[in-house]
Amino acid sequence: MSDAGKSAVWGAGARLSEDRLHMRHALSLARRTLGRVAPNPAVGCVLVRQRRVIARGYTRPGGRPHAEAVALSQAGRDAQGATAYVTLEPCAHEGETPSCARLLAEAGIARAVIALDDPDPRTAGKGLAILRQADIETVTGVMEEDARCVTAGFLSRVTMQRPLFTLKSAASLDGRIALANGTSRWITNSHARIYGHWLRASHDAILVGIGTALADDPLLDCRIPGLENRSPIRVVLDTHARLPAGSRLVQSARTVPVWLVHAAGEEIDPALAEAGVTLVPVTDPHDLAGVANSLATRGLTRVLVEGGGTVMAGFLKAGLADRLVQIHAPCLLGGDARPAFGALELGALERAPRFRLATERRIGTDRLACYVSEG
Amino acid sequence: MSDAGKSAVWGAGARLSEDRLHMRHALSLARRTLGRVAPNPAVGCVLVRQRRVIARGYTRPGGRPHAEAVALSQAGRDAQGATAYVTLEPCAHEGETPSCARLLAEAGIARAVIALDDPDPRTAGKGLAILRQADIETVTGVMEEDARCVTAGFLSRVTMQRPLFTLKSAASLDGRIALANGTSRWITNSHARIYGHWLRASHDAILVGIGTALADDPLLDCRIPGLENRSPIRVVLDTHARLPAGSRLVQSARTVPVWLVHAAGEEIDPALAEAGVTLVPVTDPHDLAGVANSLATRGLTRVLVEGGGTVMAGFLKAGLADRLVQIHAPCLLGGDARPAFGALELGALERAPRFRLATERRIGTDRLACYVSEG
Repeated sequence: MSDAGKSAVWGAGARLSEDRLHMRHALSLARRTLGRVAPNPAVGCVLVRQRRVIARGYTRPGGRPHAEAVALSQAGRDAQGATAYVTLEPCAHEGETPSCARLLAEAGIARAVIALDDPDPRTAGKGLAILRQADIETVTGVMEEDARCVTAGFLSRVTMQRPLFTLKSAASLDGRIALANGTSRWITNSHARIYGHWLRASHDAILVGIGTALADDPLLDCRIPGLENRSPIRVVLDTHARLPAGSRLVQSARTVPVWLVHAAGEEIDPALAEAGVTLVPVTDPHDLAGVANSLATRGLTRVLVEGGGTVMAGFLKAGLADRLVQIHAPCLLGGDARPAFGALELGALERAPRFRLATERRIGTDRLACYVSEG
Repeated sequence: MSDAGKSAVWGAGARLSEDRLHMRHALSLARRTLGRVAPNPAVGCVLVRQRRVIARGYTRPGGRPHAEAVALSQAGRDAQGATAYVTLEPCAHEGETPSCARLLAEAGIARAVIALDDPDPRTAGKGLAILRQADIETVTGVMEEDARCVTAGFLSRVTMQRPLFTLKSAASLDGRIALANGTSRWITNSHARIYGHWLRASHDAILVGIGTALADDPLLDCRIPGLENRSPIRVVLDTHARLPAGSRLVQSARTVPVWLVHAAGEEIDPALAEAGVTLVPVTDPHDLAGVANSLATRGLTRVLVEGGGTVMAGFLKAGLADRLVQIHAPCLLGGDARPAFGALELGALERAPRFRLATERRIGTDRLACYVSEG
């Protein structure tokens, strides 16, 4: 190979590595507002000129402004000739403000590196087309898998008309979440519990069954000091609308939204609506695919399912358990203690829901493992 | 600090590091015959002269010859002036052959580095005394914790008159070992199952309850090609001596020993003894501390408890679960599937058996975790 050829190859390699580096940066920005941008995707954008990061942006809480608009406004005239790293194809739909694709073009961006195509029909391919029409060099698919992971909730809503569901359990080594007498405070350590609250903050909503709501009278909010305003919507699956008006959930509904998913036609205590509870009537609350569709229609993209065991089993049986987050404390509670997952009524091992370990780490003496469905 | 002082400090550091290196080697030798030397300890010995390993030995299957004798015979006259690294204090008891301490002295060893004192009253301190009387420089406590771990079965038998018990489970992420209909083949992958057989080979005995023996008609042997002769003794807890003479365990008792722990006074099918089953009568088979003592008296140091759930729970409740080996497959079987551990009847979380994670690794898609009791 000639020296010139070698140099070209090395040049391409260096650029790919640099592209990946900046895209990683953009992805870390995207993650910041996970749980606060639904129904929009959480996107990150980094502008680089002459190998120097000149601006950074991410989708603002509420979903607007978009990451590209934030970064471009930060860069001002410096954006001219820069490379834009964006975790998702820039939007093509014009509203009160121009589309992100047009903003990038008008700012004089020379090159756009994009991790993931946007399946949203309003944008799909159109964002890229606008960039190319403006003679912007476009590269796609850089760190696509990572971007797919960050954007999974939005992708699920757009392509499957349902949110991404993550089942979370905090249990003993033998998968128990409480003693037979109901005692569950505390199986996991305080650091693991803080992680659990952070996990809540990165979701649009937390979902529990009415059994858990009645038994524990939980608040289901994010109680990390300084992040109290990051509490997501609290969804209760409550066929017969039994959630008491005096429960902590209802009492706090004006501060943090509560959605009550109930069977259409049930008689509802007017005190619930008066307390600010949002009523979500569905044909059959046991049809979780239907419930999931209702939640997506109302804008949810990322839902954390926290129990109880029957609800967990319901999501597993319905093939809706996209991810599994397990925190295990190094103790055993025994077969008479309460299981994290209810009956799955499996007749054969081949039908068992299977997962792939994505990440794991220790939290003090506890262990955190995140799994992705293989189903 | 003077140069001479610095050099002395550095010299000591280098020697400590070298001592640890050779002791690590000796410990890896000791591990080789775990499961084949009971009631003796598995010991490793490395002889080093002029920074060069000149001989290595480990306790031979059956418990004799000892590691030191093997290494010394390998070294011959070269042992003169060498350093001996031994994982356990050399024995002081003379029998048909001289004690290891005397062998080391007679061989002209200049320095002995020992990981762990031997609590066996026949040796405790006496081995070291023999070495010192022979003007051998002795260093103790090098990698003591690691040696304590390797020697745990022997230490348990000598100091607590019971074997070390390791509870092993191969389960789903929610701690289930079979579906409700009994199906359990296979939850874990083939590599994890091979690990399970290797684990058997490193124990003196495998223990199961009669429920498991009746339900599964298991062989409980080591079936790793080439290591078939490493199958440990198979112990069945069987109060009323119900193990059928036609079972695979009884039928194979002439090849691999079977011990039947039953209540003294029970009527025993004479076919069992005829088939080669060893009868172990105890006052009360449900008193696991008593059973443990009987097993130690008969020479067992390392016992692998493989189930079922009731037996597992029994060992946990009796405070006899020293170690826990868990293999988890990345699937969920649900609350109606069979739990690895039976009822513990805990009234408070503080009473739950707690463990410390010692090692963990992935086996294909499964995960192996080894825990040590904190109780």
